[in-house]
Amino acid sequence: MPQIRKDPLVNRWVIVATERARRPASFNDSIPTDTPVDQCPFCTGKEAHLIEQYEGIRVLHSINPLFNSDGGFEKRRHGLYDVTNNYGAHELVLETEDHVANLADFSPQSIVDVLRVYAKRMDIHRQNPVIEYVLAYKNYGVAAGSRNIGHARSQIMALPVLPMRVKDKITGSKRYYESHERCLMCDLIRQEIKDGRRIVAMNQDFIAIVPFAARFPFEVTVIPRFHHHDYALSLSGHEDQLAEIIKDVLTRYKKHLNDPAYNYIIQTAPFKAMATIQDEYHWHIEIIPRLTRVAGFERGTGFYISPIPSEMAAEYLKEE
Amino acid sequence: MPQIRKDPLVNRWVIVATERARRPASFNDSIPTDTPVDQCPFCTGKEAHLIEQYEGIRVLHSINPLFNSDGGFEKRRHGLYDVTNNYGAHELVLETEDHVANLADFSPQSIVDVLRVYAKRMDIHRQNPVIEYVLAYKNYGVAAGSRNIGHARSQIMALPVLPMRVKDKITGSKRYYESHERCLMCDLIRQEIKDGRRIVAMNQDFIAIVPFAARFPFEVTVIPRFHHHDYALSLSGHEDQLAEIIKDVLTRYKKHLNDPAYNYIIQTAPFKAMATIQDEYHWHIEIIPRLTRVAGFERGTGFYISPIPSEMAAEYLKEE
Repeated sequence: MPQIRKDPLVNRWVIVATERARRPASFNDSIPTDTPVDQCPFCTGKEAHLIEQYEGIRVLHSINPLFNSDGGFEKRRHGLYDVTNNYGAHELVLETEDHVANLADFSPQSIVDVLRVYAKRMDIHRQNPVIEYVLAYKNYGVAAGSRNIGHARSQIMALPVLPMRVKDKITGSKRYYESHERCLMCDLIRQEIKDGRRIVAMNQDFIAIVPFAARFPFEVTVIPRFHHHDYALSLSGHEDQLAEIIKDVLTRYKKHLNDPAYNYIIQTAPFKAMATIQDEYHWHIEIIPRLTRVAGFERGTGFYISPIPSEMAAEYLKEE
Repeated sequence: MPQIRKDPLVNRWVIVATERARRPASFNDSIPTDTPVDQCPFCTGKEAHLIEQYEGIRVLHSINPLFNSDGGFEKRRHGLYDVTNNYGAHELVLETEDHVANLADFSPQSIVDVLRVYAKRMDIHRQNPVIEYVLAYKNYGVAAGSRNIGHARSQIMALPVLPMRVKDKITGSKRYYESHERCLMCDLIRQEIKDGRRIVAMNQDFIAIVPFAARFPFEVTVIPRFHHHDYALSLSGHEDQLAEIIKDVLTRYKKHLNDPAYNYIIQTAPFKAMATIQDEYHWHIEIIPRLTRVAGFERGTGFYISPIPSEMAAEYLKEE
């Protein structure tokens, strides 16, 4: 089973496969062919893997899970390296019984149902004292890391460690709060509304902006206009507005960017730090279309080049 | 011209194009066709862009520079956002006069010459008090972000800000030094030699390992076995050994991974922090073959999944 290994220099946790699974020749970057509709493995059943059914939405154990809860959680040292086993959960959310690929094509109510399932899975894993974080995310399209099956789904990972990017965001939120005694995101929303040029969509409860320092062209961040650190704990009463703005952004991608592959990920606060960061951290959702490849420059440096200004990206996406 | 913008949450600098340059439809991920040899733009001339010629190696201004030194350096605030102009340098190193694509196919002496040019360019930019860091890196092959021209080259960027990943490595080096009063990399080399399973190649002065928490399959780090924080200041006397181990690793990639695209990047210490990190920071080179795509999971979280154990990757690469 995979191990989770920590890079001692930058404190990044990495999931490393430990089986003698694949020969080097199998690592080619070939594009899988489409699965014919009548062979879609997600239209029919998979009941053997079923964890829970929420009306039309099925939550399954991933067929190739990166995490599972067999045995306990074990953290150990290997000289100066830190390692844990892959304790946790890796779930597949089949978002619909119909063979529809893109959440953009869902009814608003069906999106609401999906958003509620994410919250329910987070609340279940929150009960487990070992779990530090739950990632709820979607890969749509081959370029985004999905197999080309054409049946809408997303993934849930319950992790025993904090991902590096979550740590960085916590650190940044705290740093800003310490010097201003205000939440960074709350200030940022005020500034973005005043400026207006980076707003893609806005409704009563949410704002969708192209971030000022976007890493990727047409990247969008959806931010609640009310302050809350936790997605699952604050969703209730705001589902309709969130579904509306997500559908709006994804529909604009489909229309203006020629149905691109995309990813989204819910960036909620870690469970355990909760008490200490509820004023500082402000949850949000990152949506990233996959239009360009990341070059070596970005990989080696963490220094990104966005080929289009954020203001222009927002302007294109806003076009009717 | 591009701006450099800082993400206020994670303090990441991003280069953002600011011209009205590209319509969204132009962002498709198409693979360029090969340039015919007789049309290679780098076999003949480009003298108009020439900065300096080091025997067979030409250093040019990039034809589409992300940085230049026209006008001065300007840092300003935009509400809660930080911005700078793109002051700096962006250079193309044409590594050979011959139409050879892959550094793996160079003679050891030609690689020595390239390594020396990187050091010379770093030493030149070091004189400029505005420059915080020089990135010397290579994209080989289309999947690594290079145009498919078939003429070996690498790039130099002189930056007025510190890339996030450099900051993270400085922080990690200092953290380890503070608790152990020893350099992390020096300890890591001792442990890796004792363990042996992740070593791909080693000579008198350098070791090439698959990192314990590798992010990408067959990623390799080349580390000097002597302690030094700065690539350019310590290259002299070690060029032959460094060229030998780089040629060895790249030749193993070519042989065992079917001539993959790859990137390498020299991770040296930032110029200005020099005095405060010379005991803590240990320069190294990251080499990353481009075999897999990064999925949304990695992009959103900084949490990577490596599909092959580091020990197994090293074992494959070591095969004769």
